[in-house]
Amino acid sequence: MNYQEESLKLHRELKGKLEIKTKVKVCDRQSLSLAYTPGVAQPCLEIQKNPELSYELTGRWNTVAVVTDGTAVLGLGDIGPEAGMPVMEGKCVLFKEFGNVDAIPLCIRSKDVDEIVNTVALLAGSFGGVNLEDISAPRCFEVERKLKERCDIPVFHDDQHGTAIVVLAAIKNALKLAGKRIEDAKIVVNGAGSAGIAIAKLLLDAGAVNLILCDRFGAIHRGAEGMNSEQALMSERTNPHGESGKLADVMKGADVFIGVSAPKIVTAEMIRSMAEKSIVFAMANPVPEIMPEDAKAAGAFVVGSGRSDFANQINNVLAFPGIFRGALDSRASEITRYMMLKAADAIASLVTDSELSREYVIPAAFDPRVHGAVASAVSAAAHDCGVARK
Amino acid sequence: MNYQEESLKLHRELKGKLEIKTKVKVCDRQSLSLAYTPGVAQPCLEIQKNPELSYELTGRWNTVAVVTDGTAVLGLGDIGPEAGMPVMEGKCVLFKEFGNVDAIPLCIRSKDVDEIVNTVALLAGSFGGVNLEDISAPRCFEVERKLKERCDIPVFHDDQHGTAIVVLAAIKNALKLAGKRIEDAKIVVNGAGSAGIAIAKLLLDAGAVNLILCDRFGAIHRGAEGMNSEQALMSERTNPHGESGKLADVMKGADVFIGVSAPKIVTAEMIRSMAEKSIVFAMANPVPEIMPEDAKAAGAFVVGSGRSDFANQINNVLAFPGIFRGALDSRASEITRYMMLKAADAIASLVTDSELSREYVIPAAFDPRVHGAVASAVSAAAHDCGVARK
Repeated sequence: MNYQEESLKLHRELKGKLEIKTKVKVCDRQSLSLAYTPGVAQPCLEIQKNPELSYELTGRWNTVAVVTDGTAVLGLGDIGPEAGMPVMEGKCVLFKEFGNVDAIPLCIRSKDVDEIVNTVALLAGSFGGVNLEDISAPRCFEVERKLKERCDIPVFHDDQHGTAIVVLAAIKNALKLAGKRIEDAKIVVNGAGSAGIAIAKLLLDAGAVNLILCDRFGAIHRGAEGMNSEQALMSERTNPHGESGKLADVMKGADVFIGVSAPKIVTAEMIRSMAEKSIVFAMANPVPEIMPEDAKAAGAFVVGSGRSDFANQINNVLAFPGIFRGALDSRASEITRYMMLKAADAIASLVTDSELSREYVIPAAFDPRVHGAVASAVSAAAHDCGVARK
Repeated sequence: MNYQEESLKLHRELKGKLEIKTKVKVCDRQSLSLAYTPGVAQPCLEIQKNPELSYELTGRWNTVAVVTDGTAVLGLGDIGPEAGMPVMEGKCVLFKEFGNVDAIPLCIRSKDVDEIVNTVALLAGSFGGVNLEDISAPRCFEVERKLKERCDIPVFHDDQHGTAIVVLAAIKNALKLAGKRIEDAKIVVNGAGSAGIAIAKLLLDAGAVNLILCDRFGAIHRGAEGMNSEQALMSERTNPHGESGKLADVMKGADVFIGVSAPKIVTAEMIRSMAEKSIVFAMANPVPEIMPEDAKAAGAFVVGSGRSDFANQINNVLAFPGIFRGALDSRASEITRYMMLKAADAIASLVTDSELSREYVIPAAFDPRVHGAVASAVSAAAHDCGVARK
């Protein structure tokens, strides 16, 4: 099937993948008087007295804004806010289908960090959470950081944290199968944009020590040239042995390779240079850093990718619907790193020890158990770390 | 029935009057590949080439933002954005039920004109139109003016124009029944806020000449003291005979009284001082300027109010769903005053000459013919005045 042409045809037919459904019918004077004036004055006054009641008397408890500026849409780059909308609508479909979250796509006509932040922050009273999407690095880090400072609702950049959570879940199970500990593993993350840096941070939080971030110029280490501010910060926290050189150099002896970079940049030779029982997640889309069959042929022990036509697919859809479901259910004021770690645990633990195999380290994208398990774990974790308000 | 208590109960049960409905199911790899990645790249790229295609390939063609800052909600005043949400959700229910418009409530945490304008303008690529709601005067005029300058989609402040359109429709029919011409009628509009000023402007556009605006200090005339900028502008366009004095003074000999002001400020004596076959629309809510039965007892020929329990209810719901339906159907770049006049004509003409009576000068709020008639008239008018893009 030609997905591109079929998708275009579908989008022409649908003219939008979302619509509004009303939960109350207004068909006569009485129903109007209850859902609207004059009766509606009473819920308004209750919320005025206590704005937290907006979570009880309006849809805020279940509504998330899906926000982009259209600068890093899929692998297409800066295509503009209007052109980002089909992706945002798709994301909102997944939110509803898998998390029963009412998500609303908002595409912002600005690339200015402060304008984006101000726009979203001023709307925070209408939403129970904000999912940032497809905003280019390094601006995405600043947008997220500033929004978290200003908002009393969870702000989550899925391209960073959703990806990181699913990768961590897969790595945990793959290391278990390989009989290795994350603390001892040499881990190479190639691609130092929003996803790569977020993956590195979450793996560090999960116990990784010997982790090296690479970008197209090679290993990131203290004092490396040409780093952006976020990469410079990471250079302080990673690469404890100060390894330099190209990707091929630092992959030697590595236990884990994680690619969020570019097609076909990893060779069989590089895989062969890794440690025994090596773990390779090559997630460039649609063409991975190395094709899964080539990685296996070169000796990789566990291989995963972003693609649904190979085993061990790393798919964000395993995380974000349950993450927001759990955050909304607990009315969390933020999504903490502890909640992210617990979400990864929840995903990983759905693969039992007896099921765990080289071809099955992570649940399938449509495993119906995932979202509830993630939601429960995230909600419980929100209570554990004191950010739950319900 | 105690509408307040019953409404609060309903809102507690519903926890929001809207939800998102997905128009496509995502349940397996193929459906995901069409509604989302990788297929969705194609509609994105088409829109990147031609942003107007966002009206063909996303929900933009049918989506309107319902925007407030919570400063003039119902008659409750400045209750804040969160507390305004029950009203905005109710408005969105009416948009969907009567106009099949997908409306999304956005309550903004700012009272600053430029912040509100910037927030909405930056989101204009996600919507096919903007309905402003319950923003206090005189800021609402500036918000609307600046937004119209910056947006390529229709911006409509319903409290102003929706009210004005329905009032004009009712006045047209009432004058016809009384055998008077709008050009000759002495018209007093009491209440010089957003609704009163908008009503005055639309009546002038419809041919009114001898129109006097009053506020609590009396008749607005050139050089009157204490006027805001919008009132000062209106003082140049109204009150051609320079009448001064209190409401009671200018009501003497008036053919039409329109109240958008305060409860019980019009006496039977004031009604008796009006011209023969006087027309009285007392629309303060929930308690009118004079109770309809009292106005009739004092000799008023046609009496209307904002209330559903009396004849001739002036209800915005007669206008805004059809206005936006027509603007969206014609992909109008704006809602012009000509489109507003045609909307009023469409509403008025649903009352046939044989039906027209003192108790029936305006269709009922739930007359199912209204919205289609208004939409057709507005869409045709958009083409007539060259703002249609489809």
